[in-house]
This record gives sequence, C-alpha cells and structure tokens, in this order.
Amino acid sequence: MDEFAIINRYFTGLGPQLPEVLEAQGDDCALLQIKHGELLALSVDTSVANRHFPLQADPWAIGWRCLAIALSDLAAMAARPLGFTLAITLPDADEAWLTEFSRGLRALADEAACPLIGGDTTRGPLSMSVQVHGAVKSQHHWRRSGARAGDKIVLLGPLGLASLGLKSMLDNPAKALNRKDWNRAETAYMLPRPLVIEALRLAQGVSISAAIDVSDGLLADLQHLLASSAVAAEIDLKRLPIQPELIEALGAEAALKASLQGGDDYALLMTLAEKDFELARSLCPDLVSIGRCVAGAGIRTLEGKVLDPQGFNHFLN
Amino acid sequence: MDEFAIINRYFTGLGPQLPEVLEAQGDDCALLQIKHGELLALSVDTSVANRHFPLQADPWAIGWRCLAIALSDLAAMAARPLGFTLAITLPDADEAWLTEFSRGLRALADEAACPLIGGDTTRGPLSMSVQVHGAVKSQHHWRRSGARAGDKIVLLGPLGLASLGLKSMLDNPAKALNRKDWNRAETAYMLPRPLVIEALRLAQGVSISAAIDVSDGLLADLQHLLASSAVAAEIDLKRLPIQPELIEALGAEAALKASLQGGDDYALLMTLAEKDFELARSLCPDLVSIGRCVAGAGIRTLEGKVLDPQGFNHFLN
Repeated sequence: MDEFAIINRYFTGLGPQLPEVLEAQGDDCALLQIKHGELLALSVDTSVANRHFPLQADPWAIGWRCLAIALSDLAAMAARPLGFTLAITLPDADEAWLTEFSRGLRALADEAACPLIGGDTTRGPLSMSVQVHGAVKSQHHWRRSGARAGDKIVLLGPLGLASLGLKSMLDNPAKALNRKDWNRAETAYMLPRPLVIEALRLAQGVSISAAIDVSDGLLADLQHLLASSAVAAEIDLKRLPIQPELIEALGAEAALKASLQGGDDYALLMTLAEKDFELARSLCPDLVSIGRCVAGAGIRTLEGKVLDPQGFNHFLN
Repeated sequence: MDEFAIINRYFTGLGPQLPEVLEAQGDDCALLQIKHGELLALSVDTSVANRHFPLQADPWAIGWRCLAIALSDLAAMAARPLGFTLAITLPDADEAWLTEFSRGLRALADEAACPLIGGDTTRGPLSMSVQVHGAVKSQHHWRRSGARAGDKIVLLGPLGLASLGLKSMLDNPAKALNRKDWNRAETAYMLPRPLVIEALRLAQGVSISAAIDVSDGLLADLQHLLASSAVAAEIDLKRLPIQPELIEALGAEAALKASLQGGDDYALLMTLAEKDFELARSLCPDLVSIGRCVAGAGIRTLEGKVLDPQGFNHFLN
C-alpha cells in the first residue's frame, strides 16, 4: 500500500465539512478562509512512540490522543476548531493498525467538529505531529498574560489522574493493548478530553483574564501563566480537588504531589475577576476556585509555603 | 538543557517580523491575522533521518532542507509566506548540532521572509515536521486542477540533479558531513531552492492555469496535475533540459530517465495559455516549455510513446 492509498483509505473525509475550509488535501496546500475580525490560532504537538504513548497501545487511543493534546491548546485560547493536519511517520503500512488509529482520530475529529485538512505520510519510527487551527475573535482571545492581582485562579478538569495512569502502564505494559481494560486513571492518560466546548461556552459568557492548558503539571503551567502576567499566586491546597483514585493508590501526601506536579492532564487553568466567578460556575458547574493572584512572583500556599514548579519536561526526564 | 532553553537559545526571533503574525510562540497557539480577501494556504512536510537526509549530514543543510521542501508547496500555489512551525524530535540536546541546524533554518527563513511562529520539541529519533503558512489572494491562487487542452506545459528549475546527489551520498556517506565539499548534484539534493519569489513574480504578471512542485519526479507530479485537470500531456523530450552532470555521470539514456523520474528536485511545473508564454519568459527567463496539454489522459511523447509516471513513493521504495 503506497502513500496515496493510505491517505485515500484512512484519512479522507475525516471530520466534518466546514465552510472555512476551501481546499483540504489533494492540492499542494490546504486553503482556509478566515472571516474579517477573526484571527487564526495554530498549535502543533508531536507524539513519539514509547515517549508519549506505549508503542503497543490501542491504536484507536493513539489516534484520539494525538489530536486531543493539540486541541487542548485551542481550548486554552478559546478558539473554535477549523481543521487539523496530520504528519504521520509509520514503520510500515499495517492495515489493522491504521484502521483503528484513523477511527480513534475520526471519533474526536467529529466530536470536536475539527476536520483533517492536510498532512504528510512518511516511513520511519512511529510518531505523529498534529497541528490544529482555530478561529478566535480579534481582541477577545484568551492569553497567558492577562492575569491581575486579585483575580481568582480557577480550574476545570481532573488533576494527577493521567500521571497515575501512565505509571500503571509503565508497570504493566500489557495493560496498554486494549482500551476496554482501562480504569479511570489509564483512560485519563490515553484518552484525555480536550475542553474545547467548555472553553467556548465560558468565552462567550464571561471575561477570562488569562488561560493555559495543564499539560506539564499544575505548578509548571501555572508558573508559565504567572510569569507571562507578572503576578504571583496563592494556592488554597484544601480546595485543590484530589481524585479518590490518587489517595487510594498513593496515600494522601503523594496524591497531593501528583495533583500539583503530574503531567498530561489537559485540564484548563484560568484566571478571572472575583465578581465573575459565580457566572462562570453557572456556565461550567465543574469549575473550582483554587486560589488567587497576588502581587509578586512565584507560587505560595495560603500559609506562605513556597511551591516549586517542577513539572514534566521532555529533556530532563 | 531543557525544552524551553532549546527554544530560547536556538529558535527565538528566527526569520523576519511580519505584521500578520500577532503572536509567535510563547502562548498556547500562534495567532495570525489574515486580511480580507486573502486565503491562508498551509502545507506540512516531515523529514526523517536516514530516509529524507543522512543522519550524519551537515546540520546547517538539514535545517535549510526541512524548511525548503515545505516552502516549495507554497511556491506551487504562489502563496506569500507568513510563517512556519517546527515540530522537531531530537535524540539529545547536542548544542553544536542545534547551533548549525538553527543557522541553516534561519538562513532560509530570512531569504524567504518566513518567520518561525511556533512548534514543539520532543525527544526521540531525529525527525522534523515543518508546516508553512502563506497568504494567497482569493480566487487568484494556483491549483493543480486548472490546466486545459492547448495549454503549454512549462518548467522552472533543474531536473534529476537531486537524485544524482542522493545516489552520490548513499555511495559515499562521509560526503554528507560537510556542505563545503558538495558538487552541484549533492547541493541540489541537500540544499534545494524553493521557488517562492519566482512564483510570486509569475503570479503577479501572468495567468497560470495550473501548477505543482516537482518533488516525486517530473512524470509523477505531472500525472497528479493532469489527473486533477482531466487532461493529457504531450512532452517534447528534445526540449527537456538535461543537466550536463547527469549525462557525464550516467550516460544519455539514464540521464533522460533521471530527469523524468528522479525525485527531490523541487522544480515548478506549470501550465498556461500559449499566448502568455513570452510574457512569462520575460518575468522568468529560465522558464522552459516542455510540451502541451491535450484532450485525454496520461503522458505521451510527441512521437506517441507512453511515459509511465513511476516516481518516488515512500511506501514502495
């Protein structure tokens, strides 16, 4: 099966048809039409076998996951998905693998209304780079840099579960083979849900001063947001939602550490004015307040203890 | 050196500042502003070590090449470059390698006026996916599908040299180490020149009915253009420019075959009305006419011999 056969069989008509996509695949470039007053937001994420997912993992989940982690960046800017490209490197043209991979990819492409609009297929060690493209209204997009002292820090989505799921798969690699066997933590690692729809709902109803998606760990990504905004944070550890699976597997102390530092959660971390919090909660009931921005730099607990933002970093781990 | 240090040291401020780029790197997504009446063209190409370039090749050239092959797709649509993303997977953080790689990338980013606007840095087997973004005027972009019977088929750029350069490096891998030792064929393979400026000049002055860049071999890419346009081609083999290096290295017959089927040239293949040819030549003196479009399907010589479009295909080679 050659490159063109692979594209035709597995990667054609993947995701919905959007009016902004004038040309998808088939020509030298894809063509997007951006409306006046809208900006194009784009972000790329690479997933490498045995680094970001087990080589033997359920291919349906690999397909879902590689798109999910890229869509999470659109969520962090409250951008409406327009399409994605897939640059996939395959060791061989395994039809059973490609069928399941493209099904998982398609399931999320349909759910997030984000069609495949282009890509490249090459041979080599298994990896995929997914670039997502979204539209945001000029001057109304979320940035990392808008948090101000006094703003509430709010969180949407579970923390730490993905790091527990990763540990479980590293301990027992056979676990990765079939997504039907996965517990909630393993599912959190391999099948993260990008919070695109939730972000769009919040963006339409309430003013979010800054936002970032939590991929490197809560403290690490909070630190990125704080540094961009030139403020500090006070975190109320008692309000941090600790997942029961973490306490059961790790005990209370390590569960807190996993919640603060575990990577791959793809939760959304945002700041907003205190007066807007109840409105935001009415739009997203799962939103929790975990602290507030204060003048200065760094992250402290309410009690004044410094929290060191050491998260996941590909070149240190 | 961690991921952020790599980005800061090697991949910051790479290429010119363009007014369309509102946000480059640093936030969750890059942001582009597209003017009313313009379309965004985008294309991605992956380069895998030891598949698309020798692992030991001069890193300056690897940096140039991975951007060049993607920019060639913008040239094929006469799109003005707006920026590119780089998703790079590195086996380790080798500072000497990264310095040279980023210098080669920067040289072409400056020459093509195409800044780096985002990316991802991961660890794994060496490869890079470059996605380019360009602006084209609505309704005035080049497509593969516009060729009509009677149109001239014209070519810009040398053919076959790159395949000779690749063969030379496969025969003598030490050759790849230093770009200062390369002959014209080796340079053609490792340092292709994307014809972005030439395409923009042609697009402004003359109506091009269809275009494609020649990356898989002349016959293979011509066949893509013909199939999209639903026409056939008659090629005048006597007019095909055969590079003297090819004849010297391979003899006349194999030189013709390399010119017809050799990959990685990144020449531009276009069609246009016969009446526009002299105007096009005045804009691009190196343009050569190699045949014309006729009703039907497939590729024949003037003498009626069928030419089989078997070019480079990653999953067959």
